[in-house]
Amino acid sequence: MISTTNLSRLCIHTITTKPLALPEAIAAYREIGAAGITVWRDALAPLGIAESARRLAGSGLRVVSLCRGGFFPGASAADRQKAIDENRRIIDEAAAIGAPLIVLVCGAVPGMPLAEGRKQIGDAISQLAPYAAERNIKLGIEPLHPMYAGDRSAINTLGQANDIVERIGAKNIGITIDVYHLWWDERLETEVARAGKAGSIFSFHVCDWRCPMRDLLNDRALMGQGVIDIRQIRNWVEAAGFNGMIEVEIFSTEWWAADQKKFLQKIKTAYLEHA
Amino acid sequence: MISTTNLSRLCIHTITTKPLALPEAIAAYREIGAAGITVWRDALAPLGIAESARRLAGSGLRVVSLCRGGFFPGASAADRQKAIDENRRIIDEAAAIGAPLIVLVCGAVPGMPLAEGRKQIGDAISQLAPYAAERNIKLGIEPLHPMYAGDRSAINTLGQANDIVERIGAKNIGITIDVYHLWWDERLETEVARAGKAGSIFSFHVCDWRCPMRDLLNDRALMGQGVIDIRQIRNWVEAAGFNGMIEVEIFSTEWWAADQKKFLQKIKTAYLEHA
Repeated sequence: MISTTNLSRLCIHTITTKPLALPEAIAAYREIGAAGITVWRDALAPLGIAESARRLAGSGLRVVSLCRGGFFPGASAADRQKAIDENRRIIDEAAAIGAPLIVLVCGAVPGMPLAEGRKQIGDAISQLAPYAAERNIKLGIEPLHPMYAGDRSAINTLGQANDIVERIGAKNIGITIDVYHLWWDERLETEVARAGKAGSIFSFHVCDWRCPMRDLLNDRALMGQGVIDIRQIRNWVEAAGFNGMIEVEIFSTEWWAADQKKFLQKIKTAYLEHA
Repeated sequence: MISTTNLSRLCIHTITTKPLALPEAIAAYREIGAAGITVWRDALAPLGIAESARRLAGSGLRVVSLCRGGFFPGASAADRQKAIDENRRIIDEAAAIGAPLIVLVCGAVPGMPLAEGRKQIGDAISQLAPYAAERNIKLGIEPLHPMYAGDRSAINTLGQANDIVERIGAKNIGITIDVYHLWWDERLETEVARAGKAGSIFSFHVCDWRCPMRDLLNDRALMGQGVIDIRQIRNWVEAAGFNGMIEVEIFSTEWWAADQKKFLQKIKTAYLEHA
């Protein structure tokens, strides 16, 4: 396992510290010694793309990815085309802010059979792949937990994401592993190894799964405060050849209400002890 | 597909109408023309086992199963033994009330590796199988949704349940299929067929998956008010040879607050239209 006794691989998602505007987030991440930042689109809106890009370029932080593209399935061809167009804009944004990767939350239409949703997702990503490649942008398919299958993503296992990556067969299409979504899957180790062999592990997100969980969306826990064996999954991911950033992505109403600088100190400690 | 234009296969779980005491539940289920009842243990407590058994015997309803046994994994041998002892008592209760089947929610210890949890579950059920068989009681392993893997069940797919049933190899050990827990799994059709071939489909629960879901435990929807293609799953289950009761099991803070007789009318309609 690659050492995390220093912070050279620590990346924070802006959504993790949602109350902070981008300039504040940059300063606060630097202050704890983080090395990377993953930018959520809502964090770009207040300053606009150009000024956000300028701040990021001068931040001393590596821009790891832009969150998030996706939401591809649609009931009509027009809806699906709208999603393609929107994802082209997101690819342009990623290029503008110097993010080499876009994380895809692939989407689901309530009531649409999941297999149909996955087909539409594969078609859309396949269409976008060349556009992204021309701009040197990678697209990472992030499987979401099965509790989001109804309305957020028809891709709920790493196996399903690997299948799509394999079928598309483009170098800039790969996967994003998030321990929160995937920890329960008995096939995770196998599928991580499969993605590693394909050279398609693009990024790695950590947080923890609280028991009991109080909310389906915004009750993620700090690493070490839940039931996930994060180190074991990190081991698998690194054994599969991944040596990129370890990204802290926590949606939490509770933590968002806390002092964000104190929260970042806790993230730093939790990262060193549990990630 | 076997017809549901009549109610001869409609069974209601007492937890579905939690505000009703057992005698009220029996009367109300009869009133809508339901044929079966699945009894939750909390519904037995007020009258006691003997009197509850007497009421059920005279109810005109078929007792389909007792909910629920399980919660097998434990951090210590003493904890695991406690669970075995408790499940022996539950088997005795099932025999006493004339329930041929106990549904097992198998349990999970937060932080225990899921594979270890599954091993402990298999060991426990294997130990209980002869005791249950002597009393003519079947045990149905109910896989729970992966969102409950942390603290309620280490068995989160029908494949895992089928593996345990196969390994134990006792005629009275089988599975319970609940559409709420399993609808998202791309391997569901295959695993239903596998259970069918093994003759191990013991029971079938329906409700629906609401989008968005507001609570992890108690926001199940009435059939037709969510995203699950219940008829398709029922088709698979019947194609696999199951022709038993279709059991309505809805945990819902919202419905529990409603008039239970009106709710039962809605259940009847939803059963005829969507189950």
